[in-house]
Amino acid sequence: MNAALPGSHLSPRLEPRAVPPALLEALKLRFGGQFSQAAAVREQHGRDESAFSVPPPDAVVFAQSTQDVSDAVQLAAQFKVPVIPFGVGSSLEGHLLAVQGGISLDVSRMNQVLAINAEDLTVTVQPGVTRTQLNAAVKSTGLFFPIDPGADATLGGMTATRASGTNAVRFGTMRENVLALEVVTASGEVIRTGTRAKKSSAGYDLTRLMVGSEGTLGIMTEITVKLYPLPEAVMAAIVSFDSLADAVNTTIQIIQMGVPIARCELLDATTVRIVNTYAKLNLREGAMLLMEFHGSPAGVQEQVEMVQALADENHGHAFEWAKTPEERTRLWTARHNAYFAGVQSVPGCKAITTDACVPISRLAEALLVSVEEAQASGIPYFMVGHVGDGNFHMGYLIDPSNAQERDTAEALNHKLVARALALGGTCTGEHGVGLHKMGFLVDETGAGAVAMMRAIKNALDPDNILNPGKIFALS
Amino acid sequence: MNAALPGSHLSPRLEPRAVPPALLEALKLRFGGQFSQAAAVREQHGRDESAFSVPPPDAVVFAQSTQDVSDAVQLAAQFKVPVIPFGVGSSLEGHLLAVQGGISLDVSRMNQVLAINAEDLTVTVQPGVTRTQLNAAVKSTGLFFPIDPGADATLGGMTATRASGTNAVRFGTMRENVLALEVVTASGEVIRTGTRAKKSSAGYDLTRLMVGSEGTLGIMTEITVKLYPLPEAVMAAIVSFDSLADAVNTTIQIIQMGVPIARCELLDATTVRIVNTYAKLNLREGAMLLMEFHGSPAGVQEQVEMVQALADENHGHAFEWAKTPEERTRLWTARHNAYFAGVQSVPGCKAITTDACVPISRLAEALLVSVEEAQASGIPYFMVGHVGDGNFHMGYLIDPSNAQERDTAEALNHKLVARALALGGTCTGEHGVGLHKMGFLVDETGAGAVAMMRAIKNALDPDNILNPGKIFALS
Repeated sequence: MNAALPGSHLSPRLEPRAVPPALLEALKLRFGGQFSQAAAVREQHGRDESAFSVPPPDAVVFAQSTQDVSDAVQLAAQFKVPVIPFGVGSSLEGHLLAVQGGISLDVSRMNQVLAINAEDLTVTVQPGVTRTQLNAAVKSTGLFFPIDPGADATLGGMTATRASGTNAVRFGTMRENVLALEVVTASGEVIRTGTRAKKSSAGYDLTRLMVGSEGTLGIMTEITVKLYPLPEAVMAAIVSFDSLADAVNTTIQIIQMGVPIARCELLDATTVRIVNTYAKLNLREGAMLLMEFHGSPAGVQEQVEMVQALADENHGHAFEWAKTPEERTRLWTARHNAYFAGVQSVPGCKAITTDACVPISRLAEALLVSVEEAQASGIPYFMVGHVGDGNFHMGYLIDPSNAQERDTAEALNHKLVARALALGGTCTGEHGVGLHKMGFLVDETGAGAVAMMRAIKNALDPDNILNPGKIFALS
Repeated sequence: MNAALPGSHLSPRLEPRAVPPALLEALKLRFGGQFSQAAAVREQHGRDESAFSVPPPDAVVFAQSTQDVSDAVQLAAQFKVPVIPFGVGSSLEGHLLAVQGGISLDVSRMNQVLAINAEDLTVTVQPGVTRTQLNAAVKSTGLFFPIDPGADATLGGMTATRASGTNAVRFGTMRENVLALEVVTASGEVIRTGTRAKKSSAGYDLTRLMVGSEGTLGIMTEITVKLYPLPEAVMAAIVSFDSLADAVNTTIQIIQMGVPIARCELLDATTVRIVNTYAKLNLREGAMLLMEFHGSPAGVQEQVEMVQALADENHGHAFEWAKTPEERTRLWTARHNAYFAGVQSVPGCKAITTDACVPISRLAEALLVSVEEAQASGIPYFMVGHVGDGNFHMGYLIDPSNAQERDTAEALNHKLVARALALGGTCTGEHGVGLHKMGFLVDETGAGAVAMMRAIKNALDPDNILNPGKIFALS
């Protein structure tokens, strides 16, 4: 056992379990070419976008069906060996890392769009479908799926982490948008939760218990989500501010006024500079709000006028418009790539990312000091925010081999989270707990609530085989 | 043990447990005047709006604080005696009935609005606050709370049943609107779930596990919900149709077009007649859509024009407007009283209510045949629907002493639910499972999902003291 406690946030607790050769033989027999112990394959399934480095899983199974998932889990259960679901590996918090060894269950080949029910505004997909694939598949219906984390994540991963993105301010997160699931339980049983009805009071909300459970309570094999009509009119605008505080205060006022803004994103001046370099753009290098408005032409115009007035009051520069779909795509692609732009801005670095979310009125208090602290630390950073939701990310760009930088970054992260919690917020708005925030979860919700989570985990996965060692320690 | 199985929907399974005199003494000592064994008090806490009749609880505790709830639960836990939370008794599904005896824990005196955070659009209340009390308390802030079941239910009861109402088509249900909870667990411990941040990925979604758990997993002692800015403009309209099918099809098209309608309610001609009599109104006695539009003046006008065009295409009569706040209140009060109007239309009757909800495209199939079957049965009925959500209610008005009428009504209910499930819907859109839908829950979600619910219940309430015998049978 590693000496570091999970609460230390510094190094994950490694508790590798023996993987009996008989299990590997049985998996090989059942899965043939869908089974691999090759070092390269294991390595690829043993890392994500987090700054952690731990030994890879013992083997990888490439599932192609619910039956594959069920069979793999049943075999793993028989030998009490961990199973870690894997999509595209875009987790930021170490969700995918095999801290107790075991089998990585890659569902990326389960990438069928199973049923588009346009007349009900729902779609059912397999977990390996990515968000861009989904939107391409439904495009001809005039509908779209709004949840858009930075990476082109799978719907399985997005469901498992309760993901959101730039549209959440208007459309909610995976919490609000998943209607029904098919789930393989820890015993390999296949169950269904929810229906395609828009609402239900039929017993415990197992759907939402699974959403955000990070692979620890079940493995999702079918996901039904809501779709929305493409808006009649869309306008995207950039407004630049000389002061970060002015940009934040504009955001707070937009939300408090109830403007139904579809996207409201913030980058500070440092991050605009990084994005300009990466995406070869010429954005004005001040604090910047990127906004999008949806509705009827008249409705969009009303929203724009309200927001322009608020930005003016807060000393914003003139609005710049992305009028064509191509300009909008370029702008939002740049925003989505801000994480990668940040990481590429410091060769060889790893990003330690934060993900606090606070009640909207406390956003200035939470955000401004955090940026000042990052600047004062001397560690390169970037800052992007889904600020309409009160959610923002710092990325501290550290040399992973430099323990002092890592400590400094973790200390910044600690201060930022402590501040967010003191302001009534959460340590993670959308990335999940994974390995990185296990201590923060206890700080945030209290030992009693974590004990309740642990009791649920014990009840549904008594041998602790589903992505063990994540969210909370069992002992 | 009663011979009738819960799946029979006909009579609840009674399994009274012995309540030791020592517990009653201890409660009396601790709670003094807040404790009662008086027959009238017990009777009042032993019934709800359902058609079931079972013996009342053994005693009633009137909690005035979280500490009271915790102490009462701790004492009950010590003696393994059931505790049933009670608000205003407006459950329609037998949630409050003491089928295993025990203590009714009345939280109606916990009726403080604890914190109005207008700048964050949130409010924190005790569970005994009712929806009209809440809206009165926040009125001066320019905000409102949209969830409005027919009765003036408590926020505790609404959270416990995952309630919705007429505004859910625009604002969602309690599922979407509860942000955070304080909960007393089965051991009497006080825990907190969620924060006031708008979104979070911090571990299992215990908030949403509690929402809709019908008092079986914990007793809510503080509830934080979202508020919304009062719309700049509101217009309410009635449109009457000669054919019920035309009214339903208009609704389906409104939703499929993505009109952001705030309310979209249906009454059939029979129910309009009942409401006219009860509320002394002169509504045209055809199938009727009651609608409300929120937004800017221009936005409301756009919505109205789209809906008028759709209604015209479906042979709707001319729109009638409720223009003043007083006219709107009169109209919506009449709608909210439809249940009571129905019950009063047949002296001495009890209503057996249904609550199916289906994907919007299947609403006509689900609803029209159900109304025809009710008409053919000869049993008086009423029909109201939150049709914008695909949710509708039949109330079969039976003589509770007439076994044949009850059987006929339950048979109608069975057919209606089976049809909704076959169409991809749910047996309960907003009322909850309670005693009445335990069999339907299994039909809907399958034995595997119910087994998962049972495992969670066993883990969080191992002695089965929190509102036992509801949602599912433990054995």
